[in-house]
Amino acid sequence: MQILQVKKQLVLTSRLEDLGHLPLKALRSETGELFVAMDPVGTKDGDWVFTIANSAARDAAGDKRLLTDLTVGGIIDGWQPEQK
Amino acid sequence: MQILQVKKQLVLTSRLEDLGHLPLKALRSETGELFVAMDPVGTKDGDWVFTIANSAARDAAGDKRLLTDLTVGGIIDGWQPEQK
Amino acid sequence: MQILQVKKQLVLTSRLEDLGHLPLKALRSETGELFVAMDPVGTKDGDWVFTIANSAARDAAGDKRLLTDLTVGGIIDGWQPEQK
Amino acid sequence: MQILQVKKQLVLTSRLEDLGHLPLKALRSETGELFVAMDPVGTKDGDWVFTIANSAARDAAGDKRLLTDLTVGGIIDGWQPEQK
Amino acid sequence: MQILQVKKQLVLTSRLEDLGHLPLKALRSETGELFVAMDPVGTKDGDWVFTIANSAARDAAGDKRLLTDLTVGGIIDGWQPEQK
Repeated sequence: MQILQVKKQLVLTSRLEDLGHLPLKALRSETGELFVAMDPVGTKDGDWVFTIANSAARDAAGDKRLLTDLTVGGIIDGWQPEQK
Repeated sequence: MQILQVKKQLVLTSRLEDLGHLPLKALRSETGELFVAMDPVGTKDGDWVFTIANSAARDAAGDKRLLTDLTVGGIIDGWQPEQK
Repeated sequence: MQILQVKKQLVLTSRLEDLGHLPLKALRSETGELFVAMDPVGTKDGDWVFTIANSAARDAAGDKRLLTDLTVGGIIDGWQPEQK
Repeated sequence: MQILQVKKQLVLTSRLEDLGHLPLKALRSETGELFVAMDPVGTKDGDWVFTIANSAARDAAGDKRLLTDLTVGGIIDGWQPEQK
Repeated sequence: MQILQVKKQLVLTSRLEDLGHLPLKALRSETGELFVAMDPVGTKDGDWVFTIANSAARDAAGDKRLLTDLTVGGIIDGWQPEQK
């Protein structure tokens, strides 16, 4: 799993049907890498969360048929990114 | 999932049969990394999209037997890559 | 598999139910990359461990339904990270 | 999928049986990263190809039991790597 | 698949049971990245090998239940890492 910070919800103009109804969030790692994850937890912008990848991501989204490879698993309390 | 920008459609001189009939697009991340994805959404060059990887990519392409590990899931409205 | 050092246990304020009861640990690679893994082994902060990813991670956690993509597989005796 | 250039065929002195009879090729990305892929397409050194990873790689090799995580999917016509 | 050089066998003080009886080896890529793989081939320190990842890694280890995401597939004859 990875530790990422929620940045904003994506607005989609065209999308596949089997993405379901959960919001898609843009997130960044402490080094600035960019990801998109499904959010079944209800995060707010700025929250530090951990994300679950690949086959477990689909189960984490609540339905094995959902089209996701990354899903928010929980909000981390008091995470401080390291200074580098 | 990842956020990538569509660059161009690939022209193939020799290819496996089970790739099906969807176009293959070359895409780049905001840091310049290069990827290839199947496109069931009908993107245009320059669109910012999010892509779905691995087993969900095959379902996203519409047929579990298709040979893909990365598929376009939707077009993002008004995405601005960050200045670094 | 990867070689990572255990940093600390995560405290979660909101989380999915199917994460089970094993602790989630933050770990770093010798180059400083950050990961989260389930810990069925009982590691202590500072231990160097190896981690198992993806489908094998779920079996390693002891239950295929657990929501993990990275699980601690064992503690490495006397690991010295390389100077670079 | 990724875009890679075929460099050379690997010569193996000891190998697992279930690798089958397809050649294994060493390939590099435009940034110099090194990979090995099974080649069911019949590429020549210098060809730019796209490769398919993970479970789809096994189907792409023509037999689900083959031990591969990366398989050549096709040869790209007229690919020009970007100057950086 | 990847090309890696075998560095040393890991000594584990505590480990999961379903790791089986094959040795776990630490390996490095030509750029210095560190990995751990199961070794069913019988490599020696210094050998250049290719490794197989994810679901194929478990089959490569000889038993689908083994907890591995990376397994040595064969020894490469006369591999010369590139000067950079």
